[in-house]
Amino acid sequence: MPSTTMRMLETYPKSINLDRATLAATIDALNNCAQVCTACADACLSDDGVAELTKCIRTNLDCADICTTTARVLSRHTGYDAGLSRSLLEACATACRSCGDECARHAEMHEHCRVCADVCRACERACRDLLATMS
Amino acid sequence: MPSTTMRMLETYPKSINLDRATLAATIDALNNCAQVCTACADACLSDDGVAELTKCIRTNLDCADICTTTARVLSRHTGYDAGLSRSLLEACATACRSCGDECARHAEMHEHCRVCADVCRACERACRDLLATMS
Amino acid sequence: MPSTTMRMLETYPKSINLDRATLAATIDALNNCAQVCTACADACLSDDGVAELTKCIRTNLDCADICTTTARVLSRHTGYDAGLSRSLLEACATACRSCGDECARHAEMHEHCRVCADVCRACERACRDLLATMS
Amino acid sequence: MPSTTMRMLETYPKSINLDRATLAATIDALNNCAQVCTACADACLSDDGVAELTKCIRTNLDCADICTTTARVLSRHTGYDAGLSRSLLEACATACRSCGDECARHAEMHEHCRVCADVCRACERACRDLLATMS
Repeated sequence: MPSTTMRMLETYPKSINLDRATLAATIDALNNCAQVCTACADACLSDDGVAELTKCIRTNLDCADICTTTARVLSRHTGYDAGLSRSLLEACATACRSCGDECARHAEMHEHCRVCADVCRACERACRDLLATMS
Repeated sequence: MPSTTMRMLETYPKSINLDRATLAATIDALNNCAQVCTACADACLSDDGVAELTKCIRTNLDCADICTTTARVLSRHTGYDAGLSRSLLEACATACRSCGDECARHAEMHEHCRVCADVCRACERACRDLLATMS
Repeated sequence: MPSTTMRMLETYPKSINLDRATLAATIDALNNCAQVCTACADACLSDDGVAELTKCIRTNLDCADICTTTARVLSRHTGYDAGLSRSLLEACATACRSCGDECARHAEMHEHCRVCADVCRACERACRDLLATMS
Repeated sequence: MPSTTMRMLETYPKSINLDRATLAATIDALNNCAQVCTACADACLSDDGVAELTKCIRTNLDCADICTTTARVLSRHTGYDAGLSRSLLEACATACRSCGDECARHAEMHEHCRVCADVCRACERACRDLLATMS
């Protein structure tokens, strides 16, 4: 079943300059990553070891904000600006890389960080896959 | 397969004062609604009939912002504040109702509004279902 | 000198159903509160006493998200929906009240919480002042 | 009188790796730009010439989202990541440049676009000034 993201891309009344399946997959990965990072920040905050997780929380908050914004920008096609999309996708891939690395350091101790590290890696790949189709 | 939202709820290290399945369904409905409203605003903007769709675009933008914020607040459980969650869910259900009504007015002419109306209705129901478990 | 917020209200091409000075003051208070709450959450995170500040951080994050969204909704006048503005302002005043109360509990120990408590109180008042003009 | 942004930087309990005055000026420019772009998008939407302003609206929405996210990331100092800040500031300067250029094209016809073009230019400069201190 196509996701609602894909259905919305299909109803866009003008042409879209990117592969729709890759675009939909990236938007879904970004929104998923934003949710998981928000939840991981909060789980870290309630963890007895919160004092060891402050950098992780901060990275989670950044990653959630940047993923949400990138998903919004990629959901707009009117007056498409390839330079802006590329620049933002680069920043987002950087954020996902940082957050994935930081969560991976806590993955053995904290299941929420393990799930979050995986989701950040997948989101970084999705951003880079979309970037690869844009060059 | 449980969504990542549910997996993150399962890894939260303290107790959660709400039914996790209902909570996960609401968070997913909110994030989906935010994506669809962002896309519908942009599709309206690229539509030849944009001059008839300006109220719809505005309502879409509001609904997207409020759904994203509500999903974030519901993804946090540390220092849970039932009064705030309830108040925000009420505002969010109001936004989804307004946006669903406005999109429904354009549903026969514009497929993006038809999909968006359905998604807003579903999100409003999800907010009200969660509210019902909180009283 | 009028703020840029006021200048933008003056350039809006249709009528606005609210007192512009009160509206501009509320939007500015909301954006200021969002910035201060974001900074307070991060200052708490870097504090040696972070383990005592986790509820404060969570409340800061909620308040920042809700204030940003409320400022955006109040910055839109196209297709004005009084019911939605009111409902969101109520939720936002609730968030500012919670965050102001929580920060006030730490105000003697932490200067960032003291400043943040004052800013949250001022923002709650601004929301209630605007609400008072809407009923 | 120092802005609240500066007061919050002064209360941060650890060291900050950037010049505080430049940082505070950039955060204030970003939040101001986000507000003005949100208002300009809505003013365009209510303009009789909305059909000629659709690219402007889209660029305004992107710029508002990216400025808000960049202001949030710059308001966090815990676990500072220079690479991420730089990458996001580059994307933000690109967004401000695009939005400033697009609004400038409509500045003679629309006062809201004239104000917005000036604010976007100032925000782009603030981002580049901060970037210059980071290299």
